[in-house]
Amino acid sequence: MCQLLGMNCNTPTDISFSFAGFSKRGGLTDYHTDGFGIGFFEGSGLRLFLDDQPSAESAVADLVRDYPIKSKNVIAHIRKATQGRTTLENTHPFQRELWGQYWLFAHNGNLQAFEPKEPLYYQAVGNTDSEKAFCYLLSQLRERFSALPSLDELFDALNELSESLREYGLFNMILSNGEMMYAHASTLLYYIVRQAPFGCAHLVDEDIAIDFSEVTTPNDRVAVLATLPLTDNEQWQQLACGQSVLFCEGKVVLSKLPEKVVYLSREEGLALARKAGSSI
Amino acid sequence: MCQLLGMNCNTPTDISFSFAGFSKRGGLTDYHTDGFGIGFFEGSGLRLFLDDQPSAESAVADLVRDYPIKSKNVIAHIRKATQGRTTLENTHPFQRELWGQYWLFAHNGNLQAFEPKEPLYYQAVGNTDSEKAFCYLLSQLRERFSALPSLDELFDALNELSESLREYGLFNMILSNGEMMYAHASTLLYYIVRQAPFGCAHLVDEDIAIDFSEVTTPNDRVAVLATLPLTDNEQWQQLACGQSVLFCEGKVVLSKLPEKVVYLSREEGLALARKAGSSI
Repeated sequence: MCQLLGMNCNTPTDISFSFAGFSKRGGLTDYHTDGFGIGFFEGSGLRLFLDDQPSAESAVADLVRDYPIKSKNVIAHIRKATQGRTTLENTHPFQRELWGQYWLFAHNGNLQAFEPKEPLYYQAVGNTDSEKAFCYLLSQLRERFSALPSLDELFDALNELSESLREYGLFNMILSNGEMMYAHASTLLYYIVRQAPFGCAHLVDEDIAIDFSEVTTPNDRVAVLATLPLTDNEQWQQLACGQSVLFCEGKVVLSKLPEKVVYLSREEGLALARKAGSSI
Repeated sequence: MCQLLGMNCNTPTDISFSFAGFSKRGGLTDYHTDGFGIGFFEGSGLRLFLDDQPSAESAVADLVRDYPIKSKNVIAHIRKATQGRTTLENTHPFQRELWGQYWLFAHNGNLQAFEPKEPLYYQAVGNTDSEKAFCYLLSQLRERFSALPSLDELFDALNELSESLREYGLFNMILSNGEMMYAHASTLLYYIVRQAPFGCAHLVDEDIAIDFSEVTTPNDRVAVLATLPLTDNEQWQQLACGQSVLFCEGKVVLSKLPEKVVYLSREEGLALARKAGSSI
């Protein structure tokens, strides 16, 4: 199991502050030492930085920290290998093209015995359960829709597919096509929507604070998703086990709760991850 | 039109020396000021750095210069926009997955009125003739073969497809799946195979020299491809107009010359590029 970070905004935003804390979880404040990746959509283009070095020591992570890339959709991942050797091809986020758009996917969890029936439209390059799940998701979308459907249709399809994948194990995930960001929680996933009036935020993982009112305009709206809250003085909203959420322009536009709503404590989430042969 | 750089080796090799000269062509010694990209295969994984900044000024290019990534297959590209706005999605090399392998493609030239019949298996995200040609190539390969064919079959298919694309304009290109590197020349493309006994090389674009015997082992073999020779004291081999070449493990393993063999001078190549509405 690993840590996820996502950002969806209504205006291109620099993720340096959140990434500063998040990347420290890769080897310093936490035990995520098997590589990291971060992908930034810029218009329809995608800039994906991957490294099989721990993010706390990675030259690529230094570049990302020092080089503020503004993006409306970002997905980052710090990896602790559960399946698959720690190699570049097994490093999240994974990227594919569908309907003339790049899609970016990161997964936190562990799917047991997930072997989708061949032939899939997309094939995994590495040998992780996560990349297989991504290939399955996109192949299914491609089979169901010949072009990008409405957000409602897309959300319903992704929610249904996520539920079917959860039968194989823990499936916390974030997916984006550069326009929307879809997230599904099995165990632990939190989000926050920052908008005017902006306040101060202080990182959990490093003694850094930022006054967002100094770096934003009143119209900015930024949603940040993370496995565990990144700041200790803001109110993060937890996703329920089995909840799906779709963000656009920095806010939740669609959400689906399971019939029975359960929120895990951090300890319960960690225990479930350990039991599934995963680690957080 | 733009400048291409490719490297295919029998052992993971650092491209820093060649890239030092090549990247200077992005805004300093030449007029390639519309972004650059470089992709490194590492095992079956792919690390792709793209920037819409000129490579001579790019923080991403600095990272690549300072951070010696060892790879057996590298493709780099410096872009001067002929079609398509200068945006990240139009920056080469382009990446797709086929048969569970990543494929990387860069093009130098200008295809006029190339509009492949829909629906293609792969669709362009940006609006360059180059990405359309790449999507067409991979879609055709996918249609012809259900899995990676033999090198001979792959080479013949690529050569035939390249010839058909050349009917639309200038088509100098480099393509790799992380195992082999295929190149096709319309106008200007050169290569060199470096192997023992290794000597000294001196860059054309910057006053840097390297003694390869100090940084290699006797078994190393490295093929480097470039639009124009990168060094001024080595013998580069020019590809004929219409020639296809396939490299594996740092050497040419397959080559096909057209019936009529023509080698353009640098001046003729530049004149043809200008005439095609391109620029080098």
